Amino acid sequence: MTDPTLLTLTDAARAVRDGALRAEALADACLDRIARLNPTLNAFLSVEPEEALAAARAADAEARAGRLRGPLHGVPLAHKDMFYRAGKRCTCGSPTIRGGFRPERTATVLERLDAAGAVTLGTLHMAEFAMGPTGHNAHLGRCCNPWDPDRITGGSSSGSGAAVAGRLAFGSLGSDTGGSVRLPAALCGVVGLKPTQGATPMDGVMPLSESLDCVGPLARSAEDAATLFSVITGRTDVADGIGQGVEGLRLGIPRQFYYDGLDPAVAAALERARAVLERTGARIVEVDIPDHKPYGDLANLVFTPEAAAVHAPWLRERPQDYGPQVRARLLQGLMVPAASYLQAKQLRALHLRAMIDGPFARCDALFVPALRSRVPTAAQTDVGAGPAMAAVVAGVAALTRPVSYLGLPALVTPAGFDPDGMPIPMQLIGRPQAEATLLRIADAYERATGWLSRVPQTQVIS
Amino acid sequence: MTDPTLLTLTDAARAVRDGALRAEALADACLDRIARLNPTLNAFLSVEPEEALAAARAADAEARAGRLRGPLHGVPLAHKDMFYRAGKRCTCGSPTIRGGFRPERTATVLERLDAAGAVTLGTLHMAEFAMGPTGHNAHLGRCCNPWDPDRITGGSSSGSGAAVAGRLAFGSLGSDTGGSVRLPAALCGVVGLKPTQGATPMDGVMPLSESLDCVGPLARSAEDAATLFSVITGRTDVADGIGQGVEGLRLGIPRQFYYDGLDPAVAAALERARAVLERTGARIVEVDIPDHKPYGDLANLVFTPEAAAVHAPWLRERPQDYGPQVRARLLQGLMVPAASYLQAKQLRALHLRAMIDGPFARCDALFVPALRSRVPTAAQTDVGAGPAMAAVVAGVAALTRPVSYLGLPALVTPAGFDPDGMPIPMQLIGRPQAEATLLRIADAYERATGWLSRVPQTQVIS
Repeated sequence: MTDPTLLTLTDAARAVRDGALRAEALADACLDRIARLNPTLNAFLSVEPEEALAAARAADAEARAGRLRGPLHGVPLAHKDMFYRAGKRCTCGSPTIRGGFRPERTATVLERLDAAGAVTLGTLHMAEFAMGPTGHNAHLGRCCNPWDPDRITGGSSSGSGAAVAGRLAFGSLGSDTGGSVRLPAALCGVVGLKPTQGATPMDGVMPLSESLDCVGPLARSAEDAATLFSVITGRTDVADGIGQGVEGLRLGIPRQFYYDGLDPAVAAALERARAVLERTGARIVEVDIPDHKPYGDLANLVFTPEAAAVHAPWLRERPQDYGPQVRARLLQGLMVPAASYLQAKQLRALHLRAMIDGPFARCDALFVPALRSRVPTAAQTDVGAGPAMAAVVAGVAALTRPVSYLGLPALVTPAGFDPDGMPIPMQLIGRPQAEATLLRIADAYERATGWLSRVPQTQVIS
Repeated sequence: MTDPTLLTLTDAARAVRDGALRAEALADACLDRIARLNPTLNAFLSVEPEEALAAARAADAEARAGRLRGPLHGVPLAHKDMFYRAGKRCTCGSPTIRGGFRPERTATVLERLDAAGAVTLGTLHMAEFAMGPTGHNAHLGRCCNPWDPDRITGGSSSGSGAAVAGRLAFGSLGSDTGGSVRLPAALCGVVGLKPTQGATPMDGVMPLSESLDCVGPLARSAEDAATLFSVITGRTDVADGIGQGVEGLRLGIPRQFYYDGLDPAVAAALERARAVLERTGARIVEVDIPDHKPYGDLANLVFTPEAAAVHAPWLRERPQDYGPQVRARLLQGLMVPAASYLQAKQLRALHLRAMIDGPFARCDALFVPALRSRVPTAAQTDVGAGPAMAAVVAGVAALTRPVSYLGLPALVTPAGFDPDGMPIPMQLIGRPQAEATLLRIADAYERATGWLSRVPQTQVIS
């Protein structure tokens, strides 16, 4: 038998269902890989081998008895350490402030994964309180990119990106407030889905910005992401487009903003991916989009005060327990006037309307980059709270944050590789609730390019 | 036939339904009274005699044909000038800024009144943009109290209070953000119901503070208020307690806050009213309530920035077009930090929970005053934007604003009279959605005291 960690979540789940593989073997393979690679990647904050193996054996016993819990029966997962599980330690990426936090209740999204049969391997690295787009963490050290440990994973769901790309887990939940699912997916070369604002239950999830927070899956394929998203939302339409191809779908290429100032390798990869999708049957249409430049600032006007309000008691009582970058960004949030915050929220509906009546009247999804640059090194982005901080944060999230402000769904998936062998992502942006369309396009691209069979072998760490 | 304006809304509607009175006669009587008294009261901003009479005649024709639209068939009403009607001028109390505003759509609450058969007489005086608890308006002059024109009506639904108390209309919608339904009801000696936060549709209603705004009826009796509230919400439980008495209901008397520093006449009237309700079967229980002192400030932290955000474009472009007091209060709102605003909103749920688990575990409604003082004169409260402004505004709304912050329903109804013959109000505060209980208690008090048959004759203006 080949290494089970080479399977997608979909194939692993099928193998358990069909009796071709035991859940225990899946868990064993993941735990073995964690033991070997986590010292390099720093993706897992905690590993629970006994619990995972016990859960896997229980799943095997159930399967033998003909009882399959659901589409994730016996599949090992691990999540960013900000989804509450009753009685279990949850650091939220801040061992200083949240080191002793044991929530009283379990997040609904975890309960739904449990009910679908998932096995939990442990908890994953994340930016301190989910604030930070690079994968740095002043307390926990940096999470490293499986394609090249000197490069950043992106954040804030850094561990989710690294664990899925490094094949330490079959899938992972992240959270996305300005790009925190999409950036690790983009930089680690996996699929990341940021759902429509409000699509996922948020109870038992560490709050950061109530108006922008979303839970979304990181996975190795569009189909894997569809399964996870379907389980956490209970929606049954999500996988409808998997395997259907893109014949007749209209992909919008914005004339403004998204393609400005791209690294030549990024531009070339996007061009090739677009050609693949066109050859596969998609129709490419150029579209004008509303001026996106203010959206980043508007997102900040919503994000920073909401985060500051959540953190106000700790900012007052123990400011020294924050890393310098997170503290500096939270303090900025304390200075936003409420009227500006409220206006930014009120404008949101108008800007969303302009997108729906504008480009989305002419296409089914926007096809755009997720990053202007190639995957940065750790050194390039290790700016702490210094003067370069705002520019680095804004630069990394420049193409993800506008979508968060608008509340639209967006999917990031690998488009190709740069000359250094690092993944280059594309981003698909959809109408509200159109997650199925985005997953359909990403799935068609995977099938057309043979991406899934090719990826794991090309990783530097294997 | 006696003067039809002496009837309650309930009786007037019944008379039209039974064919005992024509709707045209009701409209005629109101229009006659408006013509005679409005020059003194300044309650109507616009009167539409032709439209009102035409609508009344149409209602009569329908009634003759056996078609009754609903519980308000043929009943003349008028509302604070901030409920939008498609194509009709709506000043929002600001002829300078909103003089030319003609909304494109009609408020849902007006559509529901129309569908129930109501006839509209015109539009009513209100504080500029519904900001102001006294009944002053820098552009429109002061609305005068029907019991004594030198006294204030309260605000911001000043015209609603004066028109209902002066018998110029059978009922009226007001809006309440910090007391704007309850204060005019309190000072004009009528029934005013501020519903549970979120109970009434707010579309087509001038926004002031999205988290606090409520639409509520002002009426001559609890039963009248129940009918109006039932029509605008579509709720069928609202009048369940009318005529049922208070046998077995527990009225909570707070040991803290509400009874502090009352004018002796107010204290005596409340004491007598409490004795009446106790004699009628209510059980009086003393209760401890959470510390209410911060609630006024917390309400302001929510209210002022939300209002400032709504007004930001006009504040920037035409600040000179506001009256000094409203401008000063809006500018205060611009200075509230968003994190403070958000914390005040987040604390709301905790404070509400403390009320539900505390006093409302021991009683069905709180029985408290609505005002600490007797009805002030215009001169006492004519403070403009000067240094006394904050104290006067806070003083008048001291006992209504905490309830707005908590989002609870509250009803104000006359308890008795002071030595000058001015009404003294009581306030009943209920659990969320317990409007029916408040209306039941007010109705029982009316029946026990014969209030309804006594009031109109005692008014100075008659």
